Amino acid sequence: MQDRNKSYSLGSLADLLGLTFEGNPETLVSGLATLSSASEDQLSFYHNTLYFSDLQKTRAAAVILSPDAAADCPVPVLLSDNPYVAYAKASRLFEPDRLVETNREISTGIHSSASIDASATIGKEVSIAANVVIEAKVCIEEGCIIGANSVIGRGSSVGKDSLIYPSVTLYPDVQLGERGIIHSGVVIGSDGFGFAKDGQLQVKIAQLGGVLIGDDVEIGAGSTIDRGALEDTVIGHGVKIDNLVQIAHNVRIGENTVICGCSAVAGSSTIGKNCIIAGAVGIINHITIVDEVTVTAMSLVNKSISEKGTYSSGTGLSDTTKWKKNIVHFRQLDTLNDRVKLMERHFKNLGNPKEFDKKGDAKSE
Amino acid sequence: MQDRNKSYSLGSLADLLGLTFEGNPETLVSGLATLSSASEDQLSFYHNTLYFSDLQKTRAAAVILSPDAAADCPVPVLLSDNPYVAYAKASRLFEPDRLVETNREISTGIHSSASIDASATIGKEVSIAANVVIEAKVCIEEGCIIGANSVIGRGSSVGKDSLIYPSVTLYPDVQLGERGIIHSGVVIGSDGFGFAKDGQLQVKIAQLGGVLIGDDVEIGAGSTIDRGALEDTVIGHGVKIDNLVQIAHNVRIGENTVICGCSAVAGSSTIGKNCIIAGAVGIINHITIVDEVTVTAMSLVNKSISEKGTYSSGTGLSDTTKWKKNIVHFRQLDTLNDRVKLMERHFKNLGNPKEFDKKGDAKSE
Amino acid sequence: MQDRNKSYSLGSLADLLGLTFEGNPETLVSGLATLSSASEDQLSFYHNTLYFSDLQKTRAAAVILSPDAAADCPVPVLLSDNPYVAYAKASRLFEPDRLVETNREISTGIHSSASIDASATIGKEVSIAANVVIEAKVCIEEGCIIGANSVIGRGSSVGKDSLIYPSVTLYPDVQLGERGIIHSGVVIGSDGFGFAKDGQLQVKIAQLGGVLIGDDVEIGAGSTIDRGALEDTVIGHGVKIDNLVQIAHNVRIGENTVICGCSAVAGSSTIGKNCIIAGAVGIINHITIVDEVTVTAMSLVNKSISEKGTYSSGTGLSDTTKWKKNIVHFRQLDTLNDRVKLMERHFKNLGNPKEFDKKGDAKSE
Repeated sequence: MQDRNKSYSLGSLADLLGLTFEGNPETLVSGLATLSSASEDQLSFYHNTLYFSDLQKTRAAAVILSPDAAADCPVPVLLSDNPYVAYAKASRLFEPDRLVETNREISTGIHSSASIDASATIGKEVSIAANVVIEAKVCIEEGCIIGANSVIGRGSSVGKDSLIYPSVTLYPDVQLGERGIIHSGVVIGSDGFGFAKDGQLQVKIAQLGGVLIGDDVEIGAGSTIDRGALEDTVIGHGVKIDNLVQIAHNVRIGENTVICGCSAVAGSSTIGKNCIIAGAVGIINHITIVDEVTVTAMSLVNKSISEKGTYSSGTGLSDTTKWKKNIVHFRQLDTLNDRVKLMERHFKNLGNPKEFDKKGDAKSE
Repeated sequence: MQDRNKSYSLGSLADLLGLTFEGNPETLVSGLATLSSASEDQLSFYHNTLYFSDLQKTRAAAVILSPDAAADCPVPVLLSDNPYVAYAKASRLFEPDRLVETNREISTGIHSSASIDASATIGKEVSIAANVVIEAKVCIEEGCIIGANSVIGRGSSVGKDSLIYPSVTLYPDVQLGERGIIHSGVVIGSDGFGFAKDGQLQVKIAQLGGVLIGDDVEIGAGSTIDRGALEDTVIGHGVKIDNLVQIAHNVRIGENTVICGCSAVAGSSTIGKNCIIAGAVGIINHITIVDEVTVTAMSLVNKSISEKGTYSSGTGLSDTTKWKKNIVHFRQLDTLNDRVKLMERHFKNLGNPKEFDKKGDAKSE
Repeated sequence: MQDRNKSYSLGSLADLLGLTFEGNPETLVSGLATLSSASEDQLSFYHNTLYFSDLQKTRAAAVILSPDAAADCPVPVLLSDNPYVAYAKASRLFEPDRLVETNREISTGIHSSASIDASATIGKEVSIAANVVIEAKVCIEEGCIIGANSVIGRGSSVGKDSLIYPSVTLYPDVQLGERGIIHSGVVIGSDGFGFAKDGQLQVKIAQLGGVLIGDDVEIGAGSTIDRGALEDTVIGHGVKIDNLVQIAHNVRIGENTVICGCSAVAGSSTIGKNCIIAGAVGIINHITIVDEVTVTAMSLVNKSISEKGTYSSGTGLSDTTKWKKNIVHFRQLDTLNDRVKLMERHFKNLGNPKEFDKKGDAKSE
């Protein structure tokens, strides 16, 4: 929900967002909504021509848009060269101060039920909610919020102004940077999945590394990040990880890379900077992906990617009846290729053109 | 485990289930089991002809079955036109009162270690277990059970007779309907994954919507449901969600739809009513699926589905040696198609039949 | 992090690992690292010829390796026929006593904030951390560690020397064997996903079974294991399950099988012994996989596997532009096959060889 008690004049909104505006500076704005649903006291934004007719009909108090669209807007405007970024910044102005306010109501500062080891260091203006457990030698820097029922393991540190939602678990020796946002259910620093096979028995390899997470990292609900086997698992500055993502031991993720929900990165793989890994992608172990790679939804990355670009796997969706026929043929593609090759050879023998010369072997792509 | 202290006479069982029966009404039934494993004091059921020989040999106290199968059953019967539904109802009669009983033993009503904000509203006959945190302005309606170490965020509400298992986290502004069942590890209301790109930096978009969940919804262990960006994420009445499912922001799921384990629904997509989404399915963002659609296991839904029916993707399983050959050919399918087209053209030139006329272009399916 | 206070002489290390060595028995070893990063007081290991040049240049205090590689090592050696297993064993010697030490610092034995039902049985030398909830009739055997904020449901038991990390939830009637390791966020014993359809309504089937887990089982962070519908879900001795894995009701997993991250096993399926299920694999319901099967990453197992071996599905990764063309052809494979068949038939009519006789029907693989 939006905090409807937060309202701004159009003029002060323009100031806060660093934008110019057209319209009455006293117009009151008390919320944010889409073009079609905004009421007369709500701000909206226009960044995609799909919504052009919504723009023409909007009743919003004001609209954030690019200067060239201003003429088509029936209401006051805030001008931005990147209206979507301006919308992102505006959204922060209408956000309730959720956890802070909550904790203040239950208990200021550190809740009486929190268990905090005497050797832990707690910075100024830190809020620690009910039933939080802070183990020995932990350092929580100033301005952090630790949500209810979270556990911060021995020797871990949380950088300043980080927000840890309720029910988060940090194992020992996890270093989280500044302004981190860790959602509920996240587990960081659990053992990497490492065993050495002794006959049929799996002998556990102790995971002696930690996890090192940069600044401005957000990690979505229920995601898991394993500690390294010998060295640290490393998540770069500005990385954004969605819900239910698994990051295995020794993985390294470059700055500002985005990983969407339910993706899995297997052990010792490295992902470059500014990559976009869509949802439900699987990345196998011991591979390297360079900077600026996009992988589309549900693809399996089964080899290293050495050139930036966009990559995919899968078959796309079909009607199941057709699909059942097609997968039979998929499993016989090698045979089908041989059949075509055989005809091509005979075709050539029949005196047909050189066109067939180079295409006889499907393996030479 | 079943509660073996719960036993019923055949006659009272028939009454409770609204069924007719054949056999001694005093026969004592004290548990539920499969046809082959049921002992002489246990109830069983028959709904699938695969188990016909088990039916003929069963030693059960009684069997729920359809009238036309009664003649083949060697033991007393309970007659139902839908024996599987009757079994479902019977199963509830042998269930231990798990959480209620547990809480009663530890502490009646509200456990002394629970942190409940003074502004929260707690209905009658509510059970709140150890270390539960209930934030400001929360409303828990009558008959609810809140399991140990769960957190209910500011302003959220839980409809009457809902069961929240231990270690569940509801963020602020989550509205759960009546008779909801939320399993451990579930997180509802975490931020949607929304960023606006400013150069390489990802600017966070505050997620100002909430989550609205209908009545009779069950959500499996470890699943995550994000709050909406501007409006609510909406889960319809009677929806059943299995374990480790991810529902992104602004998703809308129609009534009675079933989503199996490890599936992911990306942002702003809409799923109709009475759909069945099998396990590990990926549904991309901003698409629409109509009512009564089935998607088979591990399919990628990469476009909207506008007609009811069953849909699939993937290749089916192969021996890995064959598979490695076939995926090479998959990645050359466009070339293979061109090779076939070329032969078809020459074939036609050789004076061959019109059959080749319409099949030359694989793109015109 | 490694516990750098733990150091051993080369001679005592050889004793502890049961290995012979070459070098000064007094050499002090105080940590474990890769060949290339090991400093002069750290142990390393060599088991893969990929790292041969690292071996030749290593500065490690000593290297675990096989006797035939000893001549190429510039530093003292520990000789093992299986150096990787010896490394696994050595890694345990440098592990900090994380949870034990932590609990000792906060509170010896049972933390004052733990809620333990009077009917629970707690063995000797058990450590129970803050906010743990132990319900009625639970049995925790000697030597167990139960991490902060974990919940152990009514009637469950935890075998001796098991380690349950913080924020774990065991429902009632879960039996965990000895030396189990359960990572944070794990949920065991949640309801199986079982409904009987009554018109459009889904009638819940009470899940009356439990979960039975053998000895020496490790379960990774955030994984979920459902209780059985009528009988138990069964996880065999020595099974290792990675993070975010879903095990549905009535599944049976054989001894020493390994299941990697984000895989899902649907209801009532059986996996044999000594199998390796790679990451993000989906296994549908009601199938059987025999012993010693390997399934590669992100495969869909959509049928039973009756012979040991390695199995795969999927298409492998492509450049997205090519991929888009290829998936069109995938969805027309049945048509392509018909086109090839048609040509083959005409080819034969043209007086071409018998080779075409048997290949006309792609369905006869």
